[in-house]
Amino acid sequence: MHPTSVHDLDFAQLDIGREQRQGLPEVVYGPGKTSEQISAITAELLRHNSGPVLVTRVAADTAAEVLGQVPGGSYDATARLLVWRPAATQDFALTVVSAGTSDLPVASEAAAVATAVGLAVTAVHDVGVAGLQRVLRIQEQLRESDTVIVVAGMEGALASVVGGLVGCPVIAVPVSTGYGASFEGVTALLAMHASCAAGLTVVNIDSGFGAAMAAHRLAWVGRRRA
Amino acid sequence: MHPTSVHDLDFAQLDIGREQRQGLPEVVYGPGKTSEQISAITAELLRHNSGPVLVTRVAADTAAEVLGQVPGGSYDATARLLVWRPAATQDFALTVVSAGTSDLPVASEAAAVATAVGLAVTAVHDVGVAGLQRVLRIQEQLRESDTVIVVAGMEGALASVVGGLVGCPVIAVPVSTGYGASFEGVTALLAMHASCAAGLTVVNIDSGFGAAMAAHRLAWVGRRRA
Amino acid sequence: MHPTSVHDLDFAQLDIGREQRQGLPEVVYGPGKTSEQISAITAELLRHNSGPVLVTRVAADTAAEVLGQVPGGSYDATARLLVWRPAATQDFALTVVSAGTSDLPVASEAAAVATAVGLAVTAVHDVGVAGLQRVLRIQEQLRESDTVIVVAGMEGALASVVGGLVGCPVIAVPVSTGYGASFEGVTALLAMHASCAAGLTVVNIDSGFGAAMAAHRLAWVGRRRA
Amino acid sequence: MHPTSVHDLDFAQLDIGREQRQGLPEVVYGPGKTSEQISAITAELLRHNSGPVLVTRVAADTAAEVLGQVPGGSYDATARLLVWRPAATQDFALTVVSAGTSDLPVASEAAAVATAVGLAVTAVHDVGVAGLQRVLRIQEQLRESDTVIVVAGMEGALASVVGGLVGCPVIAVPVSTGYGASFEGVTALLAMHASCAAGLTVVNIDSGFGAAMAAHRLAWVGRRRA
Amino acid sequence: MHPTSVHDLDFAQLDIGREQRQGLPEVVYGPGKTSEQISAITAELLRHNSGPVLVTRVAADTAAEVLGQVPGGSYDATARLLVWRPAATQDFALTVVSAGTSDLPVASEAAAVATAVGLAVTAVHDVGVAGLQRVLRIQEQLRESDTVIVVAGMEGALASVVGGLVGCPVIAVPVSTGYGASFEGVTALLAMHASCAAGLTVVNIDSGFGAAMAAHRLAWVGRRRA
Amino acid sequence: MHPTSVHDLDFAQLDIGREQRQGLPEVVYGPGKTSEQISAITAELLRHNSGPVLVTRVAADTAAEVLGQVPGGSYDATARLLVWRPAATQDFALTVVSAGTSDLPVASEAAAVATAVGLAVTAVHDVGVAGLQRVLRIQEQLRESDTVIVVAGMEGALASVVGGLVGCPVIAVPVSTGYGASFEGVTALLAMHASCAAGLTVVNIDSGFGAAMAAHRLAWVGRRRA
Amino acid sequence: MHPTSVHDLDFAQLDIGREQRQGLPEVVYGPGKTSEQISAITAELLRHNSGPVLVTRVAADTAAEVLGQVPGGSYDATARLLVWRPAATQDFALTVVSAGTSDLPVASEAAAVATAVGLAVTAVHDVGVAGLQRVLRIQEQLRESDTVIVVAGMEGALASVVGGLVGCPVIAVPVSTGYGASFEGVTALLAMHASCAAGLTVVNIDSGFGAAMAAHRLAWVGRRRA
Amino acid sequence: MHPTSVHDLDFAQLDIGREQRQGLPEVVYGPGKTSEQISAITAELLRHNSGPVLVTRVAADTAAEVLGQVPGGSYDATARLLVWRPAATQDFALTVVSAGTSDLPVASEAAAVATAVGLAVTAVHDVGVAGLQRVLRIQEQLRESDTVIVVAGMEGALASVVGGLVGCPVIAVPVSTGYGASFEGVTALLAMHASCAAGLTVVNIDSGFGAAMAAHRLAWVGRRRA
Repeated sequence: MHPTSVHDLDFAQLDIGREQRQGLPEVVYGPGKTSEQISAITAELLRHNSGPVLVTRVAADTAAEVLGQVPGGSYDATARLLVWRPAATQDFALTVVSAGTSDLPVASEAAAVATAVGLAVTAVHDVGVAGLQRVLRIQEQLRESDTVIVVAGMEGALASVVGGLVGCPVIAVPVSTGYGASFEGVTALLAMHASCAAGLTVVNIDSGFGAAMAAHRLAWVGRRRA
Repeated sequence: MHPTSVHDLDFAQLDIGREQRQGLPEVVYGPGKTSEQISAITAELLRHNSGPVLVTRVAADTAAEVLGQVPGGSYDATARLLVWRPAATQDFALTVVSAGTSDLPVASEAAAVATAVGLAVTAVHDVGVAGLQRVLRIQEQLRESDTVIVVAGMEGALASVVGGLVGCPVIAVPVSTGYGASFEGVTALLAMHASCAAGLTVVNIDSGFGAAMAAHRLAWVGRRRA
Repeated sequence: MHPTSVHDLDFAQLDIGREQRQGLPEVVYGPGKTSEQISAITAELLRHNSGPVLVTRVAADTAAEVLGQVPGGSYDATARLLVWRPAATQDFALTVVSAGTSDLPVASEAAAVATAVGLAVTAVHDVGVAGLQRVLRIQEQLRESDTVIVVAGMEGALASVVGGLVGCPVIAVPVSTGYGASFEGVTALLAMHASCAAGLTVVNIDSGFGAAMAAHRLAWVGRRRA
Repeated sequence: MHPTSVHDLDFAQLDIGREQRQGLPEVVYGPGKTSEQISAITAELLRHNSGPVLVTRVAADTAAEVLGQVPGGSYDATARLLVWRPAATQDFALTVVSAGTSDLPVASEAAAVATAVGLAVTAVHDVGVAGLQRVLRIQEQLRESDTVIVVAGMEGALASVVGGLVGCPVIAVPVSTGYGASFEGVTALLAMHASCAAGLTVVNIDSGFGAAMAAHRLAWVGRRRA
Repeated sequence: MHPTSVHDLDFAQLDIGREQRQGLPEVVYGPGKTSEQISAITAELLRHNSGPVLVTRVAADTAAEVLGQVPGGSYDATARLLVWRPAATQDFALTVVSAGTSDLPVASEAAAVATAVGLAVTAVHDVGVAGLQRVLRIQEQLRESDTVIVVAGMEGALASVVGGLVGCPVIAVPVSTGYGASFEGVTALLAMHASCAAGLTVVNIDSGFGAAMAAHRLAWVGRRRA
Repeated sequence: MHPTSVHDLDFAQLDIGREQRQGLPEVVYGPGKTSEQISAITAELLRHNSGPVLVTRVAADTAAEVLGQVPGGSYDATARLLVWRPAATQDFALTVVSAGTSDLPVASEAAAVATAVGLAVTAVHDVGVAGLQRVLRIQEQLRESDTVIVVAGMEGALASVVGGLVGCPVIAVPVSTGYGASFEGVTALLAMHASCAAGLTVVNIDSGFGAAMAAHRLAWVGRRRA
Repeated sequence: MHPTSVHDLDFAQLDIGREQRQGLPEVVYGPGKTSEQISAITAELLRHNSGPVLVTRVAADTAAEVLGQVPGGSYDATARLLVWRPAATQDFALTVVSAGTSDLPVASEAAAVATAVGLAVTAVHDVGVAGLQRVLRIQEQLRESDTVIVVAGMEGALASVVGGLVGCPVIAVPVSTGYGASFEGVTALLAMHASCAAGLTVVNIDSGFGAAMAAHRLAWVGRRRA
Repeated sequence: MHPTSVHDLDFAQLDIGREQRQGLPEVVYGPGKTSEQISAITAELLRHNSGPVLVTRVAADTAAEVLGQVPGGSYDATARLLVWRPAATQDFALTVVSAGTSDLPVASEAAAVATAVGLAVTAVHDVGVAGLQRVLRIQEQLRESDTVIVVAGMEGALASVVGGLVGCPVIAVPVSTGYGASFEGVTALLAMHASCAAGLTVVNIDSGFGAAMAAHRLAWVGRRRA
């Protein structure tokens, strides 16, 4: 870890060494930053790294301003994601399944980030366990995956069901949908941790981004070993 | 509601009118009462009512003392239940399913209380969703039930799965098994409330008794209408 | 459970088998869906099922758009409910009681959904326990019910009182009214679970819909047996 | 407030001025103190004050040791209370009602402390709202009280019901009985605060002592005015 | 309790018997009611009772509409209170103290309601314990009170300090001011319950109304005995 | 998923299909089971599967009884783990790092389970961030790992630091050590979810077992692809 | 503590003695006060004290109005701080480090308040532990500080890392940034309290002001001793 | 930070560089360590450092065993603290005040640790705010302190009162005494954070050790500057 692997932007200190350490440049978290700040950070990240540069949770108008200042990128409105230099798709099959239509934004972020960093993504929506035949009929798809991301709000039971069906890594993303006892995703987060399906792992509420990054770590170590 | 339908025992005021109002004498909650108190209450309930008399959550030694003082009852050690004058079994099919072996004590209480008040109970244990084929292969049993009680700790996902499979009433009982994020049954309780399966109802943590009583209410109104 | 009982709409997978399994087509949860999505789902549900089709928690302007695209339905503004093909009223007496005027929207949802699926509903408002004569004077109405739904915010004590007065099933709905220690309905939810009245069951906070669906399950099993 | 109204015992600083300020000597909280410490404190309080001296939550063996060292007192085992120089009973009618037999220890503490400081106490046990006729038949007793203390665990609904029946001050004491969603008295505490009965006040969980002291404040100001 | 002491307004059932039971007509909680509903309720309450009629937490524009429909009342904008037929001031000295300027709205509600029901109110603002001389210099005022209401947000320490200075009843009102660890008044509520000053009682967060009603109960019983 | 892949033991239904689905026979959770039950389950699992059979969280005396009835296994007292037929070590480098000496039991469970299922485990203890040089000097070890499990109680900061140092998958295990604001591991669990290091995943509190199973999933999919 | 050291403004009672007791006049908390109230308070504080007068958390438009009425002050828009008569910079080196760009507003408040009361402040932004080289390369700066304020949201791990690097006082400020499991700063607050770095102290969530005041206390006692 | 400043004990990695970085050798946290482990760690710490060596929260029997193996130390049973080579007392006046007799163990730990690291400690017990004259009469002592540690359970109001009386650093220690709404010290912790006294800092619940270490940091930086 070289102390010099930092680019100082006064309001931010870019971690220039991250691409070498982790196989991916630092990803920018959009909320709370002005379009000028995002543009300045993005330009430097593009200059100091060679891989994909991403900004998450960007509103459409901010995205337009940034793309005007830092050309060459593209914006995914559903995923609220800005991407420059997306990675070529590698041989790593990731399936993103979501329980209900309200989980779509988070599932979209997971799929878009994973695609941008080079994973081969298949998304299947609305397979909640209240109609169990919906998840049972995609068992083949699930079993051929290298990793499955399960996106679910309310009680999050889909994670347990999928976790029991497949042997590959399952990354559960609790979603802040639902009302009352859903407690903004806390119930799903706790339920996923208490799951009877062994070996599930969990990321933060609504963090489609975090799940995609966890999948990237899986793919990266596999690639390194290949 | 007659003000005189109370039998005053100094330390307790027995609700003598309950059998007429609700089809079942007052049930005694055992914890915190001495065997003398339980015996006194039980004797009076037997005298003032004609139906089954139950005491829940009784330790084995206390039960032996009470049975010595108030003969004619029987004790179920697994369910920790004392029963006098159990009701004849009526035509109401109740299935009690539980997710794991740790849920057995609560499932046993539900089954024993329901049997004592006259329901026709079938119990199926250890059908947690991590091995989904276990619940799928009892679908016929579930579909022929008048009511299903689902007993589950940890994340409680079995309630959602059963709730989606059948159209009859499903009463979910969260159990205080599990550790860490299970929070003594709170996670299961919240998850059951946030369930994507419409029309589930939920009772208190570990309350096999409460679930059986809810089933009794269902059967009672049906019987009244018949 | 036939894997083919799914209608795939890309953004949603309709559970076409639900009417056969549970006596009622899938009910659509409105929030987060566009009027186009609701219209598309509704049209398919009407085509693949024969019973009532409902959309819950729909704003007035969205409802108007949907009704323009899928004619034949009606909108209940208080309950925020869209209904097509309401069921004929069957012989099942449901009473919906609410504690205060702030509980009206939730009580209305319960009553409207229950009516749409064919229950015979009577609603009684504003019978909170601070003026106990209000609930005492409707005892006859309560005792003649097949099921009572109790809708109450704040401390939710009405559920315990009604639960002690009647022997039929009592479904408690905590409401997110009140302030401070009411904690958006959490206090009422916990209090209803901790109730001293045996055999109460509880649904999610503000879920008039869930309570009506639980009542539908009760009526359905009764009808099946008849 | 005189800086000199303190008696310094090294490990404790007795508030000698309290009797003058509040009409009652400092009351000793027993837990965590040795019998030697309790004896030393008690002896000084008896010396520096003229009114009743109380020690709360004392185990039987500790109480016996203290009474051996500081004669003239008496011990109430149910209330776990030591008292020296109890006050003469004044004209202030306090009723202590409790919901279930598990609430007896807390109700006993309230009654014993209130009696020791001179209030005229009537206690009525086991009048929980699941059998509403039990509280309705003591309405006359409640209405003739100067203050009512309501002791209730579980959902604490008795406080709301009593609060609606009478116009005098009602002090609610949540009790840590019950299980699951009772959360060691927290649910009752919150429910009592969220009560629909206006003008209830609440004290700490299990604090029969606190309720009795609140009643003493009421009586004291009345006496001062007389 | 006469079953006929109810006036049925369809959307509300007025508790006409309350004035006789509790010395004050039912008080109307404004939020969630239309000006038409408030006017209808108010008119009936004025007709069926003889004492003061109050509506709490009313916005200025709603208040103007109601006063246009039900003349003779007055509106206090700070306290957001509508009052008709305020009671004559009786001989009961109530002091309302508040800790900081942010506590003023709640303190104002307490003072205005208490004044409307006939208590003799003195209000002292901004005497938080960070500058202890502020509360010490009003000790005389506090000691001559029949009851003190302490209104405090943040950590609510003023309640403990006042509780230790006086012997009369102290009613603590936690306020939802502060940020972070203040948790919208929950910290103050818990701190007031855990107070080392014996005999404090507590009402709901921000409930100046509740504190005033508790004071009214104190005064009412005193008056009844006089 | 074949409905017949269940072995029915009356009190338990063994999921015989799990080894085929997930590469490992069902693992037995010890608490709440008698040694007879564990022996019966273990014998059947050994008979119906070919891979390793594990029982977690077994006390020493129970373990001795089981080994007497089901020979051929071994017991690890620190990890409280029973193992029969451990898997041959495969080429998958797992590093288990723990923050403090109190985290040892959980780290031991993770290491022992992972070893039993065939991973090549290196454990490094006591590298908490309060002495940052301890983790910095093992960077090489961490970077050469295929996966790192981070076991930490208190504030769990080690997970963030390790997550920032390496690009491979990092599985964080919160531990219930610490006191006060550690809240039995809840603070560490939440902190790990809120971590600024992207792509961390988290398992349940104290679940060394869960972390090892998550690592097994990673290795299994890699092996399948090889 | 002189009872007369209060200036009574009707709606507020200024603590005129605070400058003498604590080395700094009372600081005004802006939210909830009108510009007229702030102006009145500020004018009196300037008249009765000789040191700096500050108003925190003031919106820009309010600030402009106040400065129009009470000339001579200045407004820092980032820190939302109004200052009159800032103190001369004394020999006390305070470093404010923050973890991410979202922590800037809180870090700015800390730096601005500390500067206004006379501390020599250096601010370093965006040194979160996910890129550990960023904090390692400022070790010299940290070690030469008299006190370090660490401002961090999410999991707050920076506080533990800095706490382990330096021997001077470290004041941790949790920030309400992050989402999901960050719980508006609560996770960071708890994590900082559970930190493995001994001797950290913590202030309220988002309280840059509180941290600066704690630093002022440190400097003041040092100055007094000099 | 030298990577070599670690002494590796297999089960523990001693941070040998801490004395140089922070002016004090690593302090050993006793719970969960055997007397052999404590002895081994202590012996190495004594060998590699020159300053005081401390072990906290040690039971009496463990302490005796350790002292037998590592001579020269002493044990303070009240503080549960082992000390070797206590530091000479320096010119830094620390006052430890506690609110009630139940706070004594925590206050003793704070005082004993602070004394061992060389601070001049004065302890004053039982000055809770319910008898305010107790803290008012020690104002002189408080004002002459370089730092005050306030130890308080229940509602922790003493911290706010002391914080308002003095200008020096005030370190608040919440204590897990009290019952019910005290929530094992959580209420005191939150109340101390929400305190109206500016510039208080807070340490973990029951952490007399943490408060003493924070005081040591204050003294150390002062000494360094002298």
